[in-house]
Amino acid sequence: MRKILDGSTLTLGVCYYPEHWPQDMWAADLDRMSECGIRVVRIAEFSWNLTEPSEGVFTYDFYDRFLDLCQEKEMKVIFGTPTATPPAWLTKRYPETLNAHADGTPLEHGGRRHYNYNAPVYREKAALIVEKLASHFGRHPAVIGWQIDNELNCEVDEFYSAADACAFRIFLREKYGTLEELNRAWGTVFWNQTYTDWEEISLPKRARSGNPNPHALLDYARFISHSARGFARMQSEILRKYLKEGDFITTNGRFDHLDNHRMTRESLDFYTYDSYPDMAYNVDGGRLPSGLRDREASRSLSEVRSISPVFGIMEQQSGPNGWTTCMAAPAPKPGQMTLWTMQSIAHGADYISYFRWRTCTFGTEMYWHGILDYSGRENRRMAELRSIHRKLEAIQEVAGGCYRAQVGVLKDYDNCWDLRIDMWHRDLENVSQPAIFAAAQKTHTPLDYVYLSDEGASAPLSAYKVLIYAHPCMMSKARAAILEEYVAGGGILILGCRSGYKDLDGHCVMQDLPGLLRPLTGADIPEFTRTCPGDSPVMIRWGDRRLEAPVFNDLLRPLAGEESAEVLGVYENCYYAGEGALLRHRCQKGVVYSLGTVFTEELTAALLEEVQAAEPERETMVLPKCCELAVREKDGKKYYFVLNYSADQVTILLKRSLVSLFDGVSVEGEVALEPYGTAVLM
Amino acid sequence: MRKILDGSTLTLGVCYYPEHWPQDMWAADLDRMSECGIRVVRIAEFSWNLTEPSEGVFTYDFYDRFLDLCQEKEMKVIFGTPTATPPAWLTKRYPETLNAHADGTPLEHGGRRHYNYNAPVYREKAALIVEKLASHFGRHPAVIGWQIDNELNCEVDEFYSAADACAFRIFLREKYGTLEELNRAWGTVFWNQTYTDWEEISLPKRARSGNPNPHALLDYARFISHSARGFARMQSEILRKYLKEGDFITTNGRFDHLDNHRMTRESLDFYTYDSYPDMAYNVDGGRLPSGLRDREASRSLSEVRSISPVFGIMEQQSGPNGWTTCMAAPAPKPGQMTLWTMQSIAHGADYISYFRWRTCTFGTEMYWHGILDYSGRENRRMAELRSIHRKLEAIQEVAGGCYRAQVGVLKDYDNCWDLRIDMWHRDLENVSQPAIFAAAQKTHTPLDYVYLSDEGASAPLSAYKVLIYAHPCMMSKARAAILEEYVAGGGILILGCRSGYKDLDGHCVMQDLPGLLRPLTGADIPEFTRTCPGDSPVMIRWGDRRLEAPVFNDLLRPLAGEESAEVLGVYENCYYAGEGALLRHRCQKGVVYSLGTVFTEELTAALLEEVQAAEPERETMVLPKCCELAVREKDGKKYYFVLNYSADQVTILLKRSLVSLFDGVSVEGEVALEPYGTAVLM
Amino acid sequence: MRKILDGSTLTLGVCYYPEHWPQDMWAADLDRMSECGIRVVRIAEFSWNLTEPSEGVFTYDFYDRFLDLCQEKEMKVIFGTPTATPPAWLTKRYPETLNAHADGTPLEHGGRRHYNYNAPVYREKAALIVEKLASHFGRHPAVIGWQIDNELNCEVDEFYSAADACAFRIFLREKYGTLEELNRAWGTVFWNQTYTDWEEISLPKRARSGNPNPHALLDYARFISHSARGFARMQSEILRKYLKEGDFITTNGRFDHLDNHRMTRESLDFYTYDSYPDMAYNVDGGRLPSGLRDREASRSLSEVRSISPVFGIMEQQSGPNGWTTCMAAPAPKPGQMTLWTMQSIAHGADYISYFRWRTCTFGTEMYWHGILDYSGRENRRMAELRSIHRKLEAIQEVAGGCYRAQVGVLKDYDNCWDLRIDMWHRDLENVSQPAIFAAAQKTHTPLDYVYLSDEGASAPLSAYKVLIYAHPCMMSKARAAILEEYVAGGGILILGCRSGYKDLDGHCVMQDLPGLLRPLTGADIPEFTRTCPGDSPVMIRWGDRRLEAPVFNDLLRPLAGEESAEVLGVYENCYYAGEGALLRHRCQKGVVYSLGTVFTEELTAALLEEVQAAEPERETMVLPKCCELAVREKDGKKYYFVLNYSADQVTILLKRSLVSLFDGVSVEGEVALEPYGTAVLM
Repeated sequence: MRKILDGSTLTLGVCYYPEHWPQDMWAADLDRMSECGIRVVRIAEFSWNLTEPSEGVFTYDFYDRFLDLCQEKEMKVIFGTPTATPPAWLTKRYPETLNAHADGTPLEHGGRRHYNYNAPVYREKAALIVEKLASHFGRHPAVIGWQIDNELNCEVDEFYSAADACAFRIFLREKYGTLEELNRAWGTVFWNQTYTDWEEISLPKRARSGNPNPHALLDYARFISHSARGFARMQSEILRKYLKEGDFITTNGRFDHLDNHRMTRESLDFYTYDSYPDMAYNVDGGRLPSGLRDREASRSLSEVRSISPVFGIMEQQSGPNGWTTCMAAPAPKPGQMTLWTMQSIAHGADYISYFRWRTCTFGTEMYWHGILDYSGRENRRMAELRSIHRKLEAIQEVAGGCYRAQVGVLKDYDNCWDLRIDMWHRDLENVSQPAIFAAAQKTHTPLDYVYLSDEGASAPLSAYKVLIYAHPCMMSKARAAILEEYVAGGGILILGCRSGYKDLDGHCVMQDLPGLLRPLTGADIPEFTRTCPGDSPVMIRWGDRRLEAPVFNDLLRPLAGEESAEVLGVYENCYYAGEGALLRHRCQKGVVYSLGTVFTEELTAALLEEVQAAEPERETMVLPKCCELAVREKDGKKYYFVLNYSADQVTILLKRSLVSLFDGVSVEGEVALEPYGTAVLM
Repeated sequence: MRKILDGSTLTLGVCYYPEHWPQDMWAADLDRMSECGIRVVRIAEFSWNLTEPSEGVFTYDFYDRFLDLCQEKEMKVIFGTPTATPPAWLTKRYPETLNAHADGTPLEHGGRRHYNYNAPVYREKAALIVEKLASHFGRHPAVIGWQIDNELNCEVDEFYSAADACAFRIFLREKYGTLEELNRAWGTVFWNQTYTDWEEISLPKRARSGNPNPHALLDYARFISHSARGFARMQSEILRKYLKEGDFITTNGRFDHLDNHRMTRESLDFYTYDSYPDMAYNVDGGRLPSGLRDREASRSLSEVRSISPVFGIMEQQSGPNGWTTCMAAPAPKPGQMTLWTMQSIAHGADYISYFRWRTCTFGTEMYWHGILDYSGRENRRMAELRSIHRKLEAIQEVAGGCYRAQVGVLKDYDNCWDLRIDMWHRDLENVSQPAIFAAAQKTHTPLDYVYLSDEGASAPLSAYKVLIYAHPCMMSKARAAILEEYVAGGGILILGCRSGYKDLDGHCVMQDLPGLLRPLTGADIPEFTRTCPGDSPVMIRWGDRRLEAPVFNDLLRPLAGEESAEVLGVYENCYYAGEGALLRHRCQKGVVYSLGTVFTEELTAALLEEVQAAEPERETMVLPKCCELAVREKDGKKYYFVLNYSADQVTILLKRSLVSLFDGVSVEGEVALEPYGTAVLM
Repeated sequence: MRKILDGSTLTLGVCYYPEHWPQDMWAADLDRMSECGIRVVRIAEFSWNLTEPSEGVFTYDFYDRFLDLCQEKEMKVIFGTPTATPPAWLTKRYPETLNAHADGTPLEHGGRRHYNYNAPVYREKAALIVEKLASHFGRHPAVIGWQIDNELNCEVDEFYSAADACAFRIFLREKYGTLEELNRAWGTVFWNQTYTDWEEISLPKRARSGNPNPHALLDYARFISHSARGFARMQSEILRKYLKEGDFITTNGRFDHLDNHRMTRESLDFYTYDSYPDMAYNVDGGRLPSGLRDREASRSLSEVRSISPVFGIMEQQSGPNGWTTCMAAPAPKPGQMTLWTMQSIAHGADYISYFRWRTCTFGTEMYWHGILDYSGRENRRMAELRSIHRKLEAIQEVAGGCYRAQVGVLKDYDNCWDLRIDMWHRDLENVSQPAIFAAAQKTHTPLDYVYLSDEGASAPLSAYKVLIYAHPCMMSKARAAILEEYVAGGGILILGCRSGYKDLDGHCVMQDLPGLLRPLTGADIPEFTRTCPGDSPVMIRWGDRRLEAPVFNDLLRPLAGEESAEVLGVYENCYYAGEGALLRHRCQKGVVYSLGTVFTEELTAALLEEVQAAEPERETMVLPKCCELAVREKDGKKYYFVLNYSADQVTILLKRSLVSLFDGVSVEGEVALEPYGTAVLM
């Protein structure tokens, strides 16, 4: 059986690099870890040369020594496969294993992730090292699981090597069979891009041909995902051969151009995530409003939950982030390390592994601080770790509990990948997604993300009272049918502008809009327009409300003969004043709302009120906006996580008596929550 | 005889792509076009593969079928040669036909305009397909004219392939004969750039050598123009062999690094333009003040008029602009499609062809909307087209009329191309040209552009009361003589700072400034300076006026002994306070004004007042600033186009009775003009 | 003996390019120069083709003629070697001599500095031309000295050719001996970058591998400096063979990735600098506050002084700066040419050579104006030159005098180069260095820069009352020992945050911080953090003062048992309120101040007050902030240079009677200084 993430315990771990420190420091390090409550170390993911110092020569003594010591110290180990950083001898001898820039120049040794997934020789060499590691270390009693590679597609998620071009053509032949079908799907008749031989097809390169074919780019995104998944699956299949009973396979990170859901189904036991809330908070500011910056991690964790309901944090921030070349963040303030740990647990993580034990004293990441600074001296963050450990022990019963949300946000990879290609699409989502999340946060409305594909949804839709599908620009019959079934069963579906105007090839549909969604929405869209930057804002009048309708406006009319479709909101100005901006369509047991514009925070909050989904725990507690509410449920018991992201002490109001798990005390009425404080209430 | 643009009719057309739609839609499409007043379709400019699907295999049935249908439906056709998008089989087999980036990497198939003009095999293949198309379709009764390629130099106006390097050396040998002469012209003695063998010369690459030789860059610009013109002439000469009596040859667009005047003289019957006023208005804002954004098209149309007094609009905006990769504009508001059509006609277009019939449902341009949306359903823009057609019928008598301006702005290609190379030059023109245009617009002073070369002017100069030559930094004896003749005959010439300081090689002259213009200006420039960003603005005192003199200041003094030169304005501050900033030099029958700085809107307006050229129709009408006035004249009759670019209804004041052509009613006094409305008054 | 810079005269020179002008202009030019006080011309640095027009063919007649004329006109000559611009025939035949971009594409002929230092054939060809020039012209009586190349590392200070990669590997083998040692120094165990063969090592390319190894980048910077120095030394050794008695070798400019101190010791008699104050003032604004813009040159001159206590200005600005491709500055205002000349002299220059005689009429630099404009007519700047000459004659006694400062700012090349690699380091220095300089300027506190290496300091440290070492992030035992000796002898040392946290390989030290500086500072740093952009500013309370502590905060505590360390200032807010922000440690005869943050202007001014180093001449004079004070001392006499950088007349207060050298008059009390005026007082 699984040693962590089996639903019975919350476990602490840490990332450790024995190769970065003299061997005589190992034992003391492991002892200090244990003393702080650390039970697991993740190791080895960047150390190919340690086990294959030159081609075909394998040495195991380094990790033998380390694993034996772990066994002695009762420390469990997650072992990483080293394929994210091939040895210099490998890329020097087989330069075809390198990824290339769009102009054809290869990446070079000296960073990381400079390889490609498709060079046959890299697949072969990677398979060999994985086989050697798995067969040698797979049965070591200290080992409890394996991590494949490290952060697949991180930093680099476009590939332009010759091996990729070759693999792309194979991918396309398999997908389309004939050039005729490819030419149709890619619309190559436009601008005379018609292919008459498979060999004429190369990788579409944004930077090198100005304006490449958008449909080719879409297939290119799918191809990259296909390549990364294939690379993971190859490793997973080897590992499975050698795994001990109960040991697991995972990989970490959540990066673009990768169908993480499918990869997890195909190759992993569960998914792990690397959570650095400080990056959003301090480094680039992200897309969320300033008060919500470190809740970008909450958003990410909700996405992770959709991939893997049971998940872990492989790298949890424990110090300032920073590289020598970019990124520079302050140290987490007292309490933030705890807050961000509790944020992960609140969202469903049962395993929390900090990155990293001691800060590396060299290399690009020497400012990506761990718990300990360079000297390894006892410090504030170490002390906070001890306190976290105590808190974890107090909430062990939460383990295995499920995050509960009545509201789901629908997504799908086709539309997600299309965003990078199609700026008309991107401009919508870039407004709507942060706004929906912000509105949910500020109204303390727990939120799930649910991914849709033609094969179904990543979670049963019927579990959600409300689903928001912001801009499903690309729509298929299968997906429309899934939505229809949801609504028929009593679900509430909210759609934003531009829904259904493209098919899965990325072609605009020639039906009247919203295309395949006409029956569901009961709506017709006779006209649409982007808003005009120079004009005064377009406003929607919806009952007493006046709400801005920025970026894009669909003019919505109830379909002829659709008596159950009502106009709730109308545009108030511009030449389409009086036209419908928000429609409600009662449809069997359910309701479909069609919004003619993007989701702003205000529009989302109003819609959540309209469907009575906002603030579902309002009878239990009242929270200030700076606090997030997350609810995990287990065996019929609800565990309320209240997370205070502000630097001030705040007061929360409990309308009934709850038990505070950290100290076992019953609380009710006005309760103080310290700066960056968390309460877990039951 | 010509079927359109013969001075007898205003004609509507549309761009149509039969290859984008199922053949069974063609007939209905043509019928609907006819019903809206469309008489002509432009086709085929991106469809090489349709007639040469593989090398040397030619098929004509597709366009045979379409042209026969057009003939049946009485629709006329402009046929485009397909050379802007070579087939994949061609560039794959002959990669030397591809253009290259400055770093040497070739462009790739998958966009458009990825070819070069100079590869011998591309010239050969292009000649062959043009010959095949012309010989097969040239005599088809539906065909009335030909478009060469599409938007020559659009997007891509720099070429770095090996074929271009080779052609550049040939171009230089022809121009200079000897390396000594090239070394002199390029000033290669500076920084030891001396060439001792023709093969040492490569294309000057801005991006790859940091600071390339400016004189070489100037010849490179000339070379690109030479290449594009040669490519057009090659096609024109083939087409001429097969053209029916009265059929025409044209090409569309007006892009940089191309002497459009000379290309038109050499190869075309007339010039056509692609007018998208929304691009300036919404997409990038352009360089014009915000209230004048969609009048950038008026400026462009005035430029086009200088190339081809009789011209057409090959692509007139009929929907929102946008690509998947860039650009995103709102839909034209009700009335704007009409306004922009009338703007084209007001400036001299007798043929208006909308881009495009139905919006493409795939490819990079799927947001470059046409009249119809993807579904083809009847829509607002279609209705507006019908109304445009009715208005056109009402003003048919305008056809063939000439735009009338008393004020001309002189330009020349040498100075225009120098702007991209020389930032000291560019900084002047980038202020002056928009300001001159804006001042003319706001004072309702019709304006022409007139291009000068050593061979003469693009229009008789004596037709203009006033000529403004903003910054003829580069000047030749031949051009100075042309200007002298104009002034001698009574013309008023206005020159800005830095006139005459360079020769046509781009060398600074060693004469006292303004060099060759000293006799004409009667001025001496003992000193000059850029203005200093940190200082308070330099002001000119000119009578009662105080006007800013930004960017650059020439200190102007009447030439010794030049009693007819008077100082009108002086600098008021900085260390040259009291020095001349504006000189007037009476010269035979004419007058030359020398301005020591750039043209601001205020300075231009004041100068137009000074020479009594502002608001020439002030006795006829008084217009608000948001309205443009254009005047076409025919058979002694003046047609006043009043174009309201604002979203508000405005009032214009007619000081005498005029007939409103749209409805035949006589009007006088205060007359209302609707939002985006046009009046054509006679 | 030396003809200039021998400590006995202030001399004027000019840069002249006989190859840019018809030979018949030479004599008049030389006569006019003489008439203005010009005694020396610098020639020939960009004219390889003139003496080697084709490979192996050498011609000397051009410069023979010019030098003979100089001899006749009594004009002395500094001859430049032409290696900054190799001939086209050379790079065409030997393309391996070209530098390359990071993507591998070679630079091209047509600009300048497109060669690399390491191609064996370029070393050979460069050696040959230098030998030919030196042997032929070295004994010409007009020649008094030689300039090697021109502005080494200007514009281009990164090299990516194959020759450089090869030389880099040799450099590394010599430095490290074994790959094991290189792997250790570069920390290649991180991200599995381990090298197992020297040939696996390539040049670290920022642009091509995303995040290259920072330790490799550090060695790369050292390698570039090594290459440039080697190239200079090769030339110097050849020149020495042919130099006449008393003739000198120099080179000009001060650019990055070059240890100018070591190059000067190895290869030059003295250093020369190219001073263009206008660039900082007008073009990019630089990093200094707006009122100090043209004092960026004062900062640079102070740096130059540390390289070469006796130095010259090879190119002194005499007109507007500008290239055709970039940079555009106004003309120096009346007085500024004098001001900037006096600025150079005030900082220690005894030779002032203007760039250039007449502005070039062609080429990239045709807006880099000289004294004369293109026409060569008499002008304002020429007149100002005459006046400068008169002033120089009046202050000849200053020649040989030394600039006197009590305050030194310590620097070292390791830390300087690390700034380009390490943004955490860069962010500190980018605030501190401009602030320290600005504070010194505004308090009229003369300042020297002193460079430290393991071999010692560029000047005796004991000469300084106070030394500021802003952020010696990288520290070595040898350097710590030099600092300890300075403090032991009674010196006052001021250190900023992050001192001593890295070693010279760029590894973070595992000792408690500040590492090697613990004994000297008496401080412990248990914790540190960057400040948080979103928070309110962190403030330091220091006695009555409240001062901001931006960017970074070290928490400073006196070391256990260190009773002589006192906390002077504490953080006032954030979670470390009350922790030490400024420590004073009395240490033998001296004192060490440790500041926990960067140097702001306010903090620096307060620290200078604290150590009684601010405004050292306050008993002699009181100056407004717009004036700089510089003091040269000779034979016990002090020469006060007061430089007024403002456009306004200002009043200075002399507290005792001084002689104004320009006119020999005694002055005391309130004295007016004209706009841009200088006073030299004794």
